[in-house]
Amino acid sequence: MSRPLSIIIVEPDRDRALLIVDSLRAAGDFDIQVIAEPTSLARQIQARQPDVVLIDIENPSRDMLEELALASGPQDRAVAMFVDRSAEGLSTAAIEAGVSAYVVDGMQPGRVKPVLDAAITRFRMFQRMRTELAETKRALEERKVIDRAKGMLMKARGVSEDEAYAILRKAAMDQGKRVADVAQALVTAAGLLG
Amino acid sequence: MSRPLSIIIVEPDRDRALLIVDSLRAAGDFDIQVIAEPTSLARQIQARQPDVVLIDIENPSRDMLEELALASGPQDRAVAMFVDRSAEGLSTAAIEAGVSAYVVDGMQPGRVKPVLDAAITRFRMFQRMRTELAETKRALEERKVIDRAKGMLMKARGVSEDEAYAILRKAAMDQGKRVADVAQALVTAAGLLG
Repeated sequence: MSRPLSIIIVEPDRDRALLIVDSLRAAGDFDIQVIAEPTSLARQIQARQPDVVLIDIENPSRDMLEELALASGPQDRAVAMFVDRSAEGLSTAAIEAGVSAYVVDGMQPGRVKPVLDAAITRFRMFQRMRTELAETKRALEERKVIDRAKGMLMKARGVSEDEAYAILRKAAMDQGKRVADVAQALVTAAGLLG
Repeated sequence: MSRPLSIIIVEPDRDRALLIVDSLRAAGDFDIQVIAEPTSLARQIQARQPDVVLIDIENPSRDMLEELALASGPQDRAVAMFVDRSAEGLSTAAIEAGVSAYVVDGMQPGRVKPVLDAAITRFRMFQRMRTELAETKRALEERKVIDRAKGMLMKARGVSEDEAYAILRKAAMDQGKRVADVAQALVTAAGLLG
């Protein structure tokens, strides 16, 4: 079995914190930590790197909301936020700040687990897309660098495109590196040498 | 001013439909159509291409949920779904089907507008990322095709890489096309000619 999901709960109210913890314990096996003081969130995130952050906050200001969302690291984990009331436009701000689930009616114990599931699903969808985008961008960049390095070799050594690529590939194999890295090193070196 | 947001509401209950319409009318200027019969959704979507679909459905089965999500075209518009009860795992299914907002407590008139805003924000975030991914993929594919066409020209006409690219660019300018399209035509033609 995989390790239990680790959750940091940000909940200033002790009774509500107990309710949340109880409802999660009833729903599955979780590694839970409760933080009463939101200002310590960033430090705790650094220390524990949880899978999920669950924030229950009565009536956040926009600054507080954005600060909490940022401290949670919404690019790296699912963040679910429960608020009791929300000013106009705040849900938009929360979603744009990367919060995976934003529930306006406040926290009800029975809803914590479904919202958590939804937040995790949404986070993973975004994450998949972000990963695919990053990989595609990298492939494009690498192709550009390899093209540039090939062009340099063709000019400097009077070889064909195929031969230029063969030179890069051989250098990569000899050095146990990727062709793109050798190409990047060549482009960088050429820049330094003028 | 821009045209009002067009919304299709799927609501079998006539009284609830009126509540939703009233709460939206109070919140802003919308072009609203109510559909009582979910089975006509796909056809109505085709005919009207709304900006948003808002679905209020008491207790959907997984099949119904997925069918409604699919018929709504969640790649092309924001879809918000209100349900009264939801079986375990259904929120995950809804989110994976592309629903931008999935609210389990049922529809309350005061919450319709905030949920709609959240659904639109989330849809646009996904849309931006999808567009960026599609553009990056296309840039990568075009680069590959141009490289292939250049290689063919270099071999067939004994020219350098720069000269091969100049040939492609001139052909593109002469035909009022993009270099990538000329390169694709060349690769396709070469394939046809064996």
